[in-house]
Amino acid sequence: MVTGVSKAEGALLRHVHVAGPLTRAALAERMGVNRSTVLALTSRLARAGLVHEHAPPANRRVGRPSLVVAPAAERVYALAFDVAVDRLTAARVALGGQVLARRAVPRPRAGADLEVVVEALASMGTELHRTAPPGSVCAGVGASYCGMIRRADGMVRYGPDLGWVDQAFGAALGARLGLGLPVTVGNEAHLGAMAEHVRGAGAGLRNLIYLHGDVGVGGGIIVGGELLDGDGGYGCELGHMLVNPYDGRVCSCGSRGCLEAEVGERALLDAAGRPADRIGRDEVRSVIADAAAGDRQAAAAVRSIGDWLGIGVATLINLFNPGLLIFGGMMSDVYLAAADRVRARIAINVLPVSRERVRLCTPVLGDDTTLAGAAELAFADLLADPLGQGALAPTA
Amino acid sequence: MVTGVSKAEGALLRHVHVAGPLTRAALAERMGVNRSTVLALTSRLARAGLVHEHAPPANRRVGRPSLVVAPAAERVYALAFDVAVDRLTAARVALGGQVLARRAVPRPRAGADLEVVVEALASMGTELHRTAPPGSVCAGVGASYCGMIRRADGMVRYGPDLGWVDQAFGAALGARLGLGLPVTVGNEAHLGAMAEHVRGAGAGLRNLIYLHGDVGVGGGIIVGGELLDGDGGYGCELGHMLVNPYDGRVCSCGSRGCLEAEVGERALLDAAGRPADRIGRDEVRSVIADAAAGDRQAAAAVRSIGDWLGIGVATLINLFNPGLLIFGGMMSDVYLAAADRVRARIAINVLPVSRERVRLCTPVLGDDTTLAGAAELAFADLLADPLGQGALAPTA
Repeated sequence: MVTGVSKAEGALLRHVHVAGPLTRAALAERMGVNRSTVLALTSRLARAGLVHEHAPPANRRVGRPSLVVAPAAERVYALAFDVAVDRLTAARVALGGQVLARRAVPRPRAGADLEVVVEALASMGTELHRTAPPGSVCAGVGASYCGMIRRADGMVRYGPDLGWVDQAFGAALGARLGLGLPVTVGNEAHLGAMAEHVRGAGAGLRNLIYLHGDVGVGGGIIVGGELLDGDGGYGCELGHMLVNPYDGRVCSCGSRGCLEAEVGERALLDAAGRPADRIGRDEVRSVIADAAAGDRQAAAAVRSIGDWLGIGVATLINLFNPGLLIFGGMMSDVYLAAADRVRARIAINVLPVSRERVRLCTPVLGDDTTLAGAAELAFADLLADPLGQGALAPTA
Repeated sequence: MVTGVSKAEGALLRHVHVAGPLTRAALAERMGVNRSTVLALTSRLARAGLVHEHAPPANRRVGRPSLVVAPAAERVYALAFDVAVDRLTAARVALGGQVLARRAVPRPRAGADLEVVVEALASMGTELHRTAPPGSVCAGVGASYCGMIRRADGMVRYGPDLGWVDQAFGAALGARLGLGLPVTVGNEAHLGAMAEHVRGAGAGLRNLIYLHGDVGVGGGIIVGGELLDGDGGYGCELGHMLVNPYDGRVCSCGSRGCLEAEVGERALLDAAGRPADRIGRDEVRSVIADAAAGDRQAAAAVRSIGDWLGIGVATLINLFNPGLLIFGGMMSDVYLAAADRVRARIAINVLPVSRERVRLCTPVLGDDTTLAGAAELAFADLLADPLGQGALAPTA
């Protein structure tokens, strides 16, 4: 059970995890408690090896110095995995969010078995764990997957890119790693939204939408500061908003006229006249470059995709009245190339009151948003209850 | 400031407000506290005239009887107002939710001034207040309005039915009532969702969508137990999801192909070939009755509207993964007449994982959902802090 005290310790640890080193005075102000409370919390966290204190830099000493509290980034890390459309990534990420080391390999082709993918990830993860500095400890394991994930156990219910249905991904990866830690799995766009909300473009906002696109188009939506997950954890499937139900392109889901079918990678490449065997982010970027260089078909393709993207975005703004929309993955390229079309649709199709304050941008964390989100998942238990049952024993 | 103690008192009062009379034992279980805590909270609330205790009915006395705690429904009431598409309603609603008395008049035509609408509502409200039993007290005033409302002050930012833009409705109604109480105003579909979530079809659910339609189409969406309101309070405008952006009908908002344009009252009546001067709920019901009786054009109209409704609903389920969808206002008639079309679209267009557990229904509170939601708004301050600054003095 998480007590009030452990919640306060978790709150302090989260502050330095997200913001980096903070003075005791700054922590007291952010947490709305007095300095003696901060002192007590910090002492317990320091004894557990989760934070350390040091004097502030000399040039910042004005008056009585307030000690700086920093996360034990050199000691505590998480393993983060990312199953993306084109590659598999594993990383060792420090408490505090810095990526300490990473490995990546191309993703196996569609149809690859669970075992093949798990083996590739686990061998990278095991090596990252083995080569961690002596005395450091793994706080948790998180994974991002481009599909629909069951919250409770990391089951991939539907993963169209690899052709997976009901594959026990989280359990299999946890067993193969053999660290005695569960693997928490999340949908890639959910995790991208979480990461941008915690330490990216949406830090501190209550309502934002992260729209992630590659071959597929997904989303993560923060409502009132929390991820919209829905009854089963399958919410935010904004790629399957119906924007063109009668005349639309056929979608990977079997439906017709989904946003994904109208704005995904294949829609752009088809509109630009590229052959069906040309795929991937580089190909998308070459269409955008050709459009910028004056290629008429490429320019028309970018305009058309931008228009459909704007239609989808207009619906989202009318539904969510968000403060921010973030375009991630391939959609960051498409958005930057077609921002005028997206904005035109917002001007035409969004209720004036609903668009008074919305901003549009690309991720601050760039293409690392999903990996960063997986790391946040991995640290979640530690941050909820730093000294609880799952606490990290201090080094001997 | 709301303290921990007053929060506990508010929690207890909310339990009997929502569920009706409960034994001390049941309250202890629901609140997760011991019976002596319930006793102490109940004593303070009883002294303030907000609850009373009595012995349970004789036939339920088995073993040591646990006293029943009931809301002071005979003493504490709210004034609730509803500005709907066809009528203005005022009601006196007891703590506990029962409508004690109500008045209604036809709504003034589009273009009516703020003063005209406020005068009609206030004169009904004043009479309901004046005729309340001696010793009873008004806990708050809430109003439902079919438009976009600024949370902070009840300003109608956009009310297409009456043609209002930026009208200070809440302030004007409060001033005209002269009770010294602020008037809290909410969007009608937001309030319908809240009411069905508190004491209707969605009681206890974490995620539900209330889709309300008349001339306009709006929504109230509960995400993780809370109303999705967005940055400015203007969220849930599901009538302005773009479902047919290139070929669609022109919408009241000036856009084209909004869900409202494709499924609202006018879309159905036009498809059924009814003249443009025939409007209203009765006319809608006559089209549905004609369709059931074999009129081909009416039947085709119902099918077509049902299909577009299903398209909108499919997008909503993919986005929100809700446990329940509720069709209110005229949409309850349309849904019941075209449920097969709606369900067919869900089967075709919703991701299988997302539709595993969703249910569809009409409001338990019938056409009183919005009025009931206005009453909940009116009671909100009292329930948040029953003994605080805004507390009700006990009768002399």
